Amino acid sequence: MSLLVTGTIGIDSVETPHGKAVDVLGGSALYFAYAASLLTQVRLVGAVGDDFPKAHMDLLRQRPIDLAGLEVRKGSKTFRWQGKYTPDMNDRETLGTQLNILTEASPKVPEAFKDSKYLFLANDHPANQRRFIDQMAGPKLIVCDTMNLWIDTCRDELVKTLSCVHGVILNDGEARQLTGQSALVAAARDVLKLGPEFAVIKKGEHGSMLVTPGDVFMLPAYPTTGVKDPTGAGDSFAGGMMAHLASQDRTDVSALRYGLAVGTCVASITIEGFSLDALRTADRDTVLQRLAKLRAATRFD
Amino acid sequence: MSLLVTGTIGIDSVETPHGKAVDVLGGSALYFAYAASLLTQVRLVGAVGDDFPKAHMDLLRQRPIDLAGLEVRKGSKTFRWQGKYTPDMNDRETLGTQLNILTEASPKVPEAFKDSKYLFLANDHPANQRRFIDQMAGPKLIVCDTMNLWIDTCRDELVKTLSCVHGVILNDGEARQLTGQSALVAAARDVLKLGPEFAVIKKGEHGSMLVTPGDVFMLPAYPTTGVKDPTGAGDSFAGGMMAHLASQDRTDVSALRYGLAVGTCVASITIEGFSLDALRTADRDTVLQRLAKLRAATRFD
Repeated sequence: MSLLVTGTIGIDSVETPHGKAVDVLGGSALYFAYAASLLTQVRLVGAVGDDFPKAHMDLLRQRPIDLAGLEVRKGSKTFRWQGKYTPDMNDRETLGTQLNILTEASPKVPEAFKDSKYLFLANDHPANQRRFIDQMAGPKLIVCDTMNLWIDTCRDELVKTLSCVHGVILNDGEARQLTGQSALVAAARDVLKLGPEFAVIKKGEHGSMLVTPGDVFMLPAYPTTGVKDPTGAGDSFAGGMMAHLASQDRTDVSALRYGLAVGTCVASITIEGFSLDALRTADRDTVLQRLAKLRAATRFD
Repeated sequence: MSLLVTGTIGIDSVETPHGKAVDVLGGSALYFAYAASLLTQVRLVGAVGDDFPKAHMDLLRQRPIDLAGLEVRKGSKTFRWQGKYTPDMNDRETLGTQLNILTEASPKVPEAFKDSKYLFLANDHPANQRRFIDQMAGPKLIVCDTMNLWIDTCRDELVKTLSCVHGVILNDGEARQLTGQSALVAAARDVLKLGPEFAVIKKGEHGSMLVTPGDVFMLPAYPTTGVKDPTGAGDSFAGGMMAHLASQDRTDVSALRYGLAVGTCVASITIEGFSLDALRTADRDTVLQRLAKLRAATRFD
């Protein structure tokens, strides 16, 4: 079934203990779409300036990513971000952000995309996220991401958006910040009271958790030792998860659980290279092999 | 098969956001033995002073804990510890430590205990840990715990002890400190180079990990929301794990994996009460029920 993502597309410069990447492809919707495209067709809605390099556009065209919703605005400049990770790569410092096109009007959902059944709203101002929902014909599954900035600065808007989605993906710190609960299961249950039918909590190297009103599922991270650049891990995770749900056209708890496992494996590929480097050489089989290894590494009987 | 534990037996006073417990039973070997006794017979080697309350001794006698190795020394004082946890209970401050009997000669392993096949060396100076090993007839499985203090102050002694054991249980910070590796799988593999056949890394609320030369197993923590006092979680985990191995008389990877799951469930009971309060009302069935729930919460297919 059709899968649509909205969010940022950017040009990143990143430094980690394993090297440096300058002016590479980045952004939440970009990582999501590229990760999801390992498993299914994906529709991308976003905007870049006319400075967006042709080589980057060519890279996207090599995948089953429908770019009909990608606006290239004349006279605008693409969003840019520069960051540097700490030696253990568990934290990062933003060295610079040029919002550029993100300060302009949001891109529109093309007519042909409005029937999409699976919608992922990558991190954005929660009011913007609702404006995307309003443009759709009525997706079967709407999932949103968010960030600490919106919890701090426009909590009411975020709460309103959470009442309009079926699922939300947060990291552990955000879940605690939003609810004031330190135990993550309790935090997730409080998030569900705001509207969503499920909450996915990402814990970085510690894995992820799915909480529904009647179920808790916990999954460790894929045991990679080759992390080069953690950028895009969360968005790739969401891309893998949503691609699984859309390709199976299922939203039940069992499919969600498997979706978390797919997301975990896809994210583990992303972080083994800078930007899209590792994802570029991966395919469906790479994901399936990691899924088998993840299952073997988590079984006890 | 016979299971022996050596380590501290103490009198603790603990404060957490959920309350206070004054002059309650504590200590590494004590938590280990009481936890293990839910599943099997356990032999305890330790020393207390003649100030050790009769009520505490009576509590131990209600369980299948063989106290023939518990020395009650006239004129000596029992080890005491006072601590206070942070609001999120992920860290604690030591308010006071009275080493007392721990500054005297270590207790001896009684003749009748020397044939024990399963030996757990709770946290102690690594040279002391080796002295316990030397008293034994040749256990089938020797597992030790350690702490950051020994990594800092007598690393060479610790490395020597690690070359004498089959397995080691560390927390994530200790594994990183010992090896200088930030990725835990890589840290565990470096620990194995020092001698042990397996390393168990405890990650608190994030679960645990088992690494052998050919295998990685990852397990989330049991999803309890009722944590009252984290004291003794790690020793209870070890107690549950070793009790499983000893009761099954198995040391293969599959048994080790299941042992981690048993340890996880037993530890989750411990932390739901102060001191032994929650463990006292638990039994084998409580553990089995949690094991079933843990398996259900970690499965994807």
